[in-house]
Amino acid sequence: MSRTVISSASKTVIMGFDQPFCIIGERINPTGRKKLAEEMAAGDFSTVERDALAQVEAGAHMLDVNAGIPLADEPKILAETVKLVQSLTDVPLSIDSSVVAALESGLSVYQGKALVNSVTGEEERLEAVLPLVAKYGAAVVAISNDETGISEDPDVRYAVAKKIVERAQDHGIPKEDVVVDPLVMPIGAMGTAGRQVFALLRRLREELGVNTTCGASNISFGLPNRHGLNATFLAMAAGAGMTSAIMNPLRPEEMAGIMAANVLNGVDVGCGQWIRKFREPSSPEAANGGRERGERRRRRVAV
Amino acid sequence: MSRTVISSASKTVIMGFDQPFCIIGERINPTGRKKLAEEMAAGDFSTVERDALAQVEAGAHMLDVNAGIPLADEPKILAETVKLVQSLTDVPLSIDSSVVAALESGLSVYQGKALVNSVTGEEERLEAVLPLVAKYGAAVVAISNDETGISEDPDVRYAVAKKIVERAQDHGIPKEDVVVDPLVMPIGAMGTAGRQVFALLRRLREELGVNTTCGASNISFGLPNRHGLNATFLAMAAGAGMTSAIMNPLRPEEMAGIMAANVLNGVDVGCGQWIRKFREPSSPEAANGGRERGERRRRRVAV
Repeated sequence: MSRTVISSASKTVIMGFDQPFCIIGERINPTGRKKLAEEMAAGDFSTVERDALAQVEAGAHMLDVNAGIPLADEPKILAETVKLVQSLTDVPLSIDSSVVAALESGLSVYQGKALVNSVTGEEERLEAVLPLVAKYGAAVVAISNDETGISEDPDVRYAVAKKIVERAQDHGIPKEDVVVDPLVMPIGAMGTAGRQVFALLRRLREELGVNTTCGASNISFGLPNRHGLNATFLAMAAGAGMTSAIMNPLRPEEMAGIMAANVLNGVDVGCGQWIRKFREPSSPEAANGGRERGERRRRRVAV
Repeated sequence: MSRTVISSASKTVIMGFDQPFCIIGERINPTGRKKLAEEMAAGDFSTVERDALAQVEAGAHMLDVNAGIPLADEPKILAETVKLVQSLTDVPLSIDSSVVAALESGLSVYQGKALVNSVTGEEERLEAVLPLVAKYGAAVVAISNDETGISEDPDVRYAVAKKIVERAQDHGIPKEDVVVDPLVMPIGAMGTAGRQVFALLRRLREELGVNTTCGASNISFGLPNRHGLNATFLAMAAGAGMTSAIMNPLRPEEMAGIMAANVLNGVDVGCGQWIRKFREPSSPEAANGGRERGERRRRRVAV
C-alpha cells in the first residue's frame, strides 16, 4: 500500500488508499486570472493571502502554488509566494511550474517535503525535473503524457506512468513519492473520457500501486452545471482509486461529493466528518454553522 | 454483454452495461406508508395513480408495484394495482412481493414481460419463485442472501448470486433475465458497506456478467443529508457496474447523480440528456422550466 507523505515545517499530510481523499487547493494560480497575474507581477500578494486562508478554511489539505505570469520573473515570484503562503498557513504545498528554474527557486525556500507539480514522460522533462525532486527529497506529480502527446489509449497512458515511476526510481525517488495524474479530458468533446480515466485509475492503483491526482474540473469543460458534474466525477474517480485532486475547495458541491465518497469508501471513520457537516441544526455544533436560520428564528421571536 | 429486456404491452426497457442507468420508481409500496396502506386496502387507488404518473414524469423507466398490507388480500390488491398502473402508463413494471401467490396473481394480469421482485438464495424461495418466473417468461431480481442470512463477506454473497443464476438456468431462465441485488447495508452501522458493494458489483459485472440493481436508500439509513449520500452512492455504484436501482425518482439530487454518472460512463450520448436538463435559461427549452426566474424579471420590469 503506497503512502505519499507531504509536509510543511509543522504539518504532515498522507495520501493513501486508506486515507481520506486529499484536497489540493488550486486557487493560487494566475493562469486565466488576469487581475491576480497583474497583482502578483506588481508584488501585491493580497489576493494570494485571501485565497490561501479561504481554501484552508474551506477544507483544503494542501495548496497548489503557481506563479506562471508571462514576461514576469517567475522564479522570484514563486519563491516569494511560497514563503508568504508558508507564513500564513501550515498546510503543505504543491509547487507548480512548467519552468524548471522556478521549481528550483520554490523548492529552495520551501520548509518541509513539498510536492513538485509536475513532470511528464518527455525525456527532457524527466532529466530536468527528477534530479531536482531527488535533491530536495520531494514528491512529484507525474503526468501521463510524453513526446507523442496525450494518448486516447489508457494502456499507453499506463505505460507512460510506469516509465516515469521507473525513471524516478533510477534517480532514487521511491514509488510512493510519485503521484500519477492520469490526465482528464473534457467529456463533452470525448465521450469515453470518463471510462478511460476510471479504468486507468484502477490499473494505477491495483497494478502500479501508486497514488493519483488530477485537475478535476477539466472533465466538465463546455457543459452546463459543471459543479454538479465535477462533484460526481470526483466521487466516481475516488471509487476507482483516485486519492487526491487539484481542485477548488470553495465549491460546496465538489466538497460534498468528496465527503460522501470518503464515507462510502470507508475512510471517514464512523462517518464523523459527514455527521459533523450535515447533522440537523438542533444540535449545538451545527447550529453554530447555521447562523442564517438562527437569525430568522430570533427575529421571529422578537416580532 | 448481458442485456435484460423488460416490457409492457407497448414499451421496452433494456438494462445493460452500454445503456443509461435504469431507474425503477419505488413509490408504489405501502410499506411504511400507513395512509397509502389504508387507502389500498379500502380500494382507493388515488395515491397510487398520482405516484405512478409523477414518477414517470420525473424520469422513471420502470415502476415497482408492491401491495404488501398486513391482513389484506395481497394477491387481489396487487393484481388490481398492476392493472391500474398499466392502464395509466406504458412503462414496464417490477412486480414486488414476498408472497408467492401475490406474485402469481400480479403476473397473471400483467401485459408484457415483467420483472419479478424477488427471489433469494433460500431453497424454498428458489423452488417457489423460479417456476413462476419461467412460466410467465419474466425476468427476476435475485437477492444475494440465503438461509444463513446476509453475509458480510462479498465472496459469500457472490457465491449466492452465482447459485441463483445457475438455478435459474436449470429452470430455463437465461442469465440475462436474472438481475442481481448485492444487498446494500447501512454504512452508518457498517463502515465497509460501500466498499463491499462496489467490489461485489465489479465481480458481478466482470465475472458473472449480470445486470444489477439495489434499494439504494438503505446505504444512508440513520445519517444526515441522506439524499446527498444516496446520490453519490448511486453514481459510485454505477461506476462499479450497477445498471439499475429501485429508488425515488422524485428526488432531484439522486436523479442528478445518476444523470452525471450516465455522462461519465459514456452512456448519455453526446451528453444530450445532461445538456437538455441543465443548459442555461437563455435557451428556450430551459427557460420553460425556469418560470420563477422569468416571474421575478417581469415583476422587476413592472416596478
